This record gives sequence, structure tokens and C-alpha cells, in this order.
Amino acid sequence: MSDRPLILVTNDDGIHAKGLFSLSQIAKDFGDVVVVAPDKPQSGMGHAITMATPLWLKEAHLDNVSAYSTSGTPVDCVKLAVYEIMHRKPDLILSGINHGSNSSINVIYSGTMSAAVEGAVEGIKSIGFSLLNHDEDADFSESEPFIRKIIENVLREPMMLGSCLNVNIPQGKPRGIKVCRQAKGYWEDSFVKRSDPQGNNYYWMKGDFVVKEKGEDTDLWALDHGFISVVPTQFDMTAHHAIANLNTWKF
Amino acid sequence: MSDRPLILVTNDDGIHAKGLFSLSQIAKDFGDVVVVAPDKPQSGMGHAITMATPLWLKEAHLDNVSAYSTSGTPVDCVKLAVYEIMHRKPDLILSGINHGSNSSINVIYSGTMSAAVEGAVEGIKSIGFSLLNHDEDADFSESEPFIRKIIENVLREPMMLGSCLNVNIPQGKPRGIKVCRQAKGYWEDSFVKRSDPQGNNYYWMKGDFVVKEKGEDTDLWALDHGFISVVPTQFDMTAHHAIANLNTWKF
Repeated sequence: MSDRPLILVTNDDGIHAKGLFSLSQIAKDFGDVVVVAPDKPQSGMGHAITMATPLWLKEAHLDNVSAYSTSGTPVDCVKLAVYEIMHRKPDLILSGINHGSNSSINVIYSGTMSAAVEGAVEGIKSIGFSLLNHDEDADFSESEPFIRKIIENVLREPMMLGSCLNVNIPQGKPRGIKVCRQAKGYWEDSFVKRSDPQGNNYYWMKGDFVVKEKGEDTDLWALDHGFISVVPTQFDMTAHHAIANLNTWKF
Repeated sequence: MSDRPLILVTNDDGIHAKGLFSLSQIAKDFGDVVVVAPDKPQSGMGHAITMATPLWLKEAHLDNVSAYSTSGTPVDCVKLAVYEIMHRKPDLILSGINHGSNSSINVIYSGTMSAAVEGAVEGIKSIGFSLLNHDEDADFSESEPFIRKIIENVLREPMMLGSCLNVNIPQGKPRGIKVCRQAKGYWEDSFVKRSDPQGNNYYWMKGDFVVKEKGEDTDLWALDHGFISVVPTQFDMTAHHAIANLNTWKF
């Protein structure tokens, strides 16, 4: 067995995404890489897991790395990788590079980030990377030196128990890296209503993103100003600050 | 228009679940109720949303309440309800009653809790209820007075900005209500491997829940001791405590 770090690379855009390939090629310089990714796009799948149906797993072909595709979600990919393919916890999970932003509240809808969060739940160092460009053929080259720098830091520093990193990268040449918090915002949705040939109504979801604050310590501020945002992201969803007040309620 | 509170009831077990019906009947005593729930079970869907395909929406039939089923996830149900069916934010979202626990890390996989979290994201008072009984025909009667008490409190008190409540209810007659934090734990998964008639391998996910602590202020402790657990649950996933350390890294 190699004494190089064992690195799992996954994503939510699927096994054929350019961002996954780019990340796997960077990862090779840091350790032994196994890619386990969804066999189709799974954007917006959040922390979904597959319980009612089985999962299919197939070998896939990616240049110079061991690769598998699954019929499941990004979180399923992490679970299959850890418990069925690797039979041990990898030293590092890299998720992405996502085609599109996972800043602010998007972290909660994102399959890419949920894979990283699942890594943190299982006690594995994990990073989700996203580029603010939805293009299938997005150019990841300008972000590469920064991605390398972040991976180096994560491998060198002790595990941040209970959290992973949410890294978002602006388009063009980044001005640097800022450690941030998740900005407050939400999607004000609307639906386009249509009828199918049988007369049944169906709806397409559309959304306008609403920013709810002007803080300069947020991921949105950093990205708007040309910086890469790094948000430490946890899975303890307890609103600890609300506990004292709740204890005054008359249950 | 009524001046009674407008209440959305949803779940992840689907429109036909007994827990949804029980909760809608309780909700009727507190306001005007609209039920919008998935047309099939959506357990484990986390915060997934449907973006690549459209959503179907149909009127459904539930005793004495306005009801709709959708082809989407629990979070889709909240979005369709708020932006397409009600055309305004309801005063309260009730999600559940889930058939099975959503304590500890299960909050992050749970469609029921993700619907409540989505309510919080959109600034709506929201509560997710779960009974520690997976039986389709579970008896919700002993939990009903406690559910009423919790709803009364949430309607009376100011909105807890940025959070909702995760309420888990033990089987039998509860001893009371405890405000708690989410216990540390995770699923140690394994997979049952089989082959289909074409020789393709498929995998069923199984898991053993591993508790990582012995705290007496957690939801698991409360439930193990016969109490209902109430955990204030937020959508800010920033690990704020990790920011100072991250700022010392050599990016």
C-alpha cells in the first residue's frame, strides 16, 4: 500500500463534468486518487440519500485515475466510496469543481457541498470547490494555483473537527483568498405554469436570489470583490444561541 | 379573508401518511390549513430541490382541509405552497408528523426537517415533528397534547430569526419537554451487494448509528429518558468558531 494520502474526488455535476476531471488531475499530485461520482447531474440534491431503491455502481474511465460512477446522489457516492470501494476512510475528500456558485444559502441545496459535509460528519478532511461559472466548458486554469494552496493547507493542518471547507472561486484571476462566513440570503421563487398534452399542469421553478445583508465578512462580499471565499462549514445545525430563550417558554 | 393564522402542513412520508393527516387535524384548531405534500414517500431527501425537471401539482383529498400533492421533494412542496398556491408566506409551517426519528445527525438527511428549515430560510415560523415509530399505523394520540403546547408557544412568541424547531417524540406517554442540542453521531454504513439478471451489481445501503458522546443536554439523551426533545435548528452552516484558526493558515 502507498503511504501517499488516499483522496476521494466526487461532485454533483456528474462523472462527465469538466470540473470533476480538473479536480482529479490536481488531486493526483497530492495522493492516490479514487473518483466516485454520480452517473448523471445531481445539482440541487442537497444531503439526499437513497434508501428506498438500490444503488448501481460501475467502473468509469477517466485519465490516469481509478474511477466509478453511481446511480446515486453525491452523499451516496461518499458512502459507497468509504464503505464499499475503499473499505477505509480516505485522508481527504475533494468535491467539485462545481460549475456554478455554492455561496450563501446555496450551500444547503448543493450536492457538491453536501458530499463535503458528509465527509465532515464521518470525520474526514473535506473541501468543496465551486467556480462562479455555469458553462460546461468553464476554464478552471486560473483557479488551479489557489486550489493547490488550499489543499496543501488542509493536508498540513490538523482536522477541523466537525467542519469542512466551502470554497467559492470568482471568474477571472482571483485577487486572493478570504476566510468568510455564509452570507444571509434566500431564493424568492416563482413558477412557470404549463399544461401537458393530457391537460395536467406542471411547473418549472425559477428563482431570484435576495441578499439580506451588507456584511463585509461574508462569502458574497469576497466574491463580489474578486476574492476566493473560504467558509468553514459544519453539520451541527443546533441554533445554540436560541437555547437560553427557548428555556423561558411555557411548555 | 380569515384573520386566523394561515398554516402550511407538509411532510416527507407523502400525502397518504397517517402522520400528515394527524398533524393537519391538530393544525385546524389553530388556523386555516393548506396541506402540500409529496405524492410519494420522500424520506432521506434532505434539502433536495427539483431543478432539471418540472413539478406536477394535483388537488388531493384530505378530510376538511385544502390539500395538494406534488411530484417534488419536501422543500419543493414548501416553495410551491408559498409562491404558487398561497401566494403569500404562511404564518406557520408544520412538517410531519414523521414516522421515525429525526434526532442527532438525521436532521441533515431528513426531508421533513428540511421542509421546516426551508421555512426558516424564508423567514417563516416552522416546526418539524417526528415520532420514534416507523410503523405506518403509528399511534400519535399520546403526543398530541404536547404538539398543541409547542404550536401554541411558537404562535405566541416572536419569530426566532434564522431558526426553526426540530421536535422528536418518544414512543408511549412522554414525561415532558426538554430543550436540547443535536447529539453528535453518524451512520456507519454498509452495503448489501447483489446482481441483477443482466449481471450488473447493485447495492442496498444499511447503516448502524454510532453515537459519539454522552452529553445530557442532547436530543438523544432526552429521548432515551422518555422526554420530547426540542432542538432549535438553523440554516447558517458557518462554523463560526473555526474562523479565527483558519485566519492563521498560510493561504
